[in-house]
Amino acid sequence: MTNSTILIRSWIDSANDPDGPFPVNNLPYGVFSTGGDAPRCGVAIGEYVLDLAALERAGLFPAVGFDAPALNPFMAQGPAVWADIRQRLIALLSQGSDQQEAVRQALFLRADVTLHLPFKVAEYTDFYAGRSHATNIGTMFRGAENALPPNWLHIPIGYNGRASTVVVSGTAIRRPNGQLKAPDQDMPSFGPCKRLDIELELGAVIGVPSAMGQPVSVAEADAMIFGYVLLNDWSARDIQAWEYQPLGPFQAKAFATTIGAWVVTRAALEPFRTSTPPREKPLLPYLQEAGPLLYDIDLSVTMAPAGQAPTPICRTNYSRMYYSSAQQLAHHTSSGCSMNIGDLLGSGTISGPEKSEFGSLQEITWAGKEPLTLGDATRTFIEDGDTLTLHGHAQGQGYRIGFGTCAGTVLPAVTYPK
Amino acid sequence: MTNSTILIRSWIDSANDPDGPFPVNNLPYGVFSTGGDAPRCGVAIGEYVLDLAALERAGLFPAVGFDAPALNPFMAQGPAVWADIRQRLIALLSQGSDQQEAVRQALFLRADVTLHLPFKVAEYTDFYAGRSHATNIGTMFRGAENALPPNWLHIPIGYNGRASTVVVSGTAIRRPNGQLKAPDQDMPSFGPCKRLDIELELGAVIGVPSAMGQPVSVAEADAMIFGYVLLNDWSARDIQAWEYQPLGPFQAKAFATTIGAWVVTRAALEPFRTSTPPREKPLLPYLQEAGPLLYDIDLSVTMAPAGQAPTPICRTNYSRMYYSSAQQLAHHTSSGCSMNIGDLLGSGTISGPEKSEFGSLQEITWAGKEPLTLGDATRTFIEDGDTLTLHGHAQGQGYRIGFGTCAGTVLPAVTYPK
Repeated sequence: MTNSTILIRSWIDSANDPDGPFPVNNLPYGVFSTGGDAPRCGVAIGEYVLDLAALERAGLFPAVGFDAPALNPFMAQGPAVWADIRQRLIALLSQGSDQQEAVRQALFLRADVTLHLPFKVAEYTDFYAGRSHATNIGTMFRGAENALPPNWLHIPIGYNGRASTVVVSGTAIRRPNGQLKAPDQDMPSFGPCKRLDIELELGAVIGVPSAMGQPVSVAEADAMIFGYVLLNDWSARDIQAWEYQPLGPFQAKAFATTIGAWVVTRAALEPFRTSTPPREKPLLPYLQEAGPLLYDIDLSVTMAPAGQAPTPICRTNYSRMYYSSAQQLAHHTSSGCSMNIGDLLGSGTISGPEKSEFGSLQEITWAGKEPLTLGDATRTFIEDGDTLTLHGHAQGQGYRIGFGTCAGTVLPAVTYPK
Repeated sequence: MTNSTILIRSWIDSANDPDGPFPVNNLPYGVFSTGGDAPRCGVAIGEYVLDLAALERAGLFPAVGFDAPALNPFMAQGPAVWADIRQRLIALLSQGSDQQEAVRQALFLRADVTLHLPFKVAEYTDFYAGRSHATNIGTMFRGAENALPPNWLHIPIGYNGRASTVVVSGTAIRRPNGQLKAPDQDMPSFGPCKRLDIELELGAVIGVPSAMGQPVSVAEADAMIFGYVLLNDWSARDIQAWEYQPLGPFQAKAFATTIGAWVVTRAALEPFRTSTPPREKPLLPYLQEAGPLLYDIDLSVTMAPAGQAPTPICRTNYSRMYYSSAQQLAHHTSSGCSMNIGDLLGSGTISGPEKSEFGSLQEITWAGKEPLTLGDATRTFIEDGDTLTLHGHAQGQGYRIGFGTCAGTVLPAVTYPK
């Protein structure tokens, strides 16, 4: 489709590894620091992170907000600047660049840097847009005959999540406490969640705001998306089951959401466009797609008990979603709801129809009835010390657009009330 | 209980009006501008607003962040500074103040200023904590036998709302579009909401943050609240009915939430403390109250078709709530969810048991079956051009702690899709 469907060769050897996540074609943005210095914006290239604040200071390109601890100022520059900077970075990092010495001075080995939350999350909205996931969860919570809610094929169902607890990959996750009540119990009790779970998602990062009272079309919505991150919507299934009627999940989801450290731009993903699955019912005009809006992105999850090697527990693809992020965003504005730079939209759990493609333990172990084997251990839900890691990449011809990883290790619950 | 249960007399005559909202006892904070100048923080006193940024510049008290377009920097100074500044303001504005001339130069007639959103809303959470409202709505949505969800007497039920569309009193409200489907229709349609409603609420403004992974007790939660505002949680009942299962209200509530321009401090409300109603089931320890946590605050709503005088449609009291904001906040952190300065917690609709005390049109007209008379007009839900206004005050001995008003006029929906 475009030149970028083949590898753009770099003068940095490690960026030419066909199995590496960060070739010149990718150039995902993040925020990093080295030693104790101030976090600033960078871009991943091969085994390095390129210090974009240093490039700004060196005058290699205009000041566009990279000397900041979040990508929000850069995103606020808008799509024309995003495109310009991408072209400049490709030129600087490709073979034949005449600025290799200047660029080399702004490279840090990724192994040596600390990665931070890449952007200030304005608000976080989570959707429920995977057909298989909705069917699986619906079957377990409401029975097979009520699995898919009647609105599901018409509306990209979503709810407002909690932005204050969105953390970057690698942040330890504290097991939540909450109200628990089994159906056969008379009264609820309070204590640590016993059914702690993950949700494999992709997050869309909003880079262009919209005004209150002004809905946007699906095409306009697509153009508002700056990029995508891996996203793990940690979920306390037992807290959720007792609290979620009638107003939806609240504390079951509020304790933590982990995102990957690298925002892969829409531009980098363009060659991997693919369509949503066939519509089972016609969509209302405001949700109809002008072209392919999903991406062909391979996704997987590994799980590792403390001290053990990770075991793959899920392998699926983003193209399984019934609704795209652009459709979700158009719906989000349909009432006149305004969007801000840094808004984060979770895709909803990405599951395929086969058990090997299920994107949550709730589905993989079928609500705990079919335990999972991890080396010597078995698991229904997450135990303290377990590490869960999401992986993702789009596969080009001889190169990959990688998302890095999205990992979290679970710590025991705090004792509360004291 | 304290000295402030009687009027603190001011050298500003209009602050001594026994029916006025803003005596020295109150001193609610807001953000204002005059002409086209920069918004800054002020305090309401009688018929004036006192320019606190000017007082800072004049050295009448230490710089505590008032020269800003939001109260967040001042709130970040913490409770000891809040208390200190309140004492200094009481001294400056009481009879006998030796700084009357300096203060007089920083007074603007409230009629002449523009009031702005008083704080940057970090995140907005809305609760469902009124016993009568939950029973009424539950009866209409799910039938009398399922009116109160089984968790309701155990959990302060809440959901995350949308912060980007919280606006200040006086902002025009655009009627939302959305998906609508009557039970007898086969497919949904898209168009303007036909059942636009209000919800009479009080909002708690969080002034002290809490850390991720660290739940707070009810007593700690109470101390985190900076103050309270009137809050109208505009609701599209028809959009809500079709979208809200299984993950709760989304676009039905996302288009607008109006708050009053004046944040009444917890300190000003202290003399009006009252207890929550008797518990129908014992609460879990993490939700139990150490003392009275509600307030005796008279609330009312008026409705005015375009060009007509307002008619009262509801008169109730904040003490009707089953859960206090402190209990809601403690629950909000129970999973480890962190709170930030500027978080806004809606109380949930405040309704009493009598029809005259119902805090939404859904209840007042019983889902549109019992129309309301407003002068020559009748209403089931809100029509274009209607103005809805919330009012609130706590009644002391010869003085009032007023909240001002919280008003919005409804404009026609935009034509969409184009």
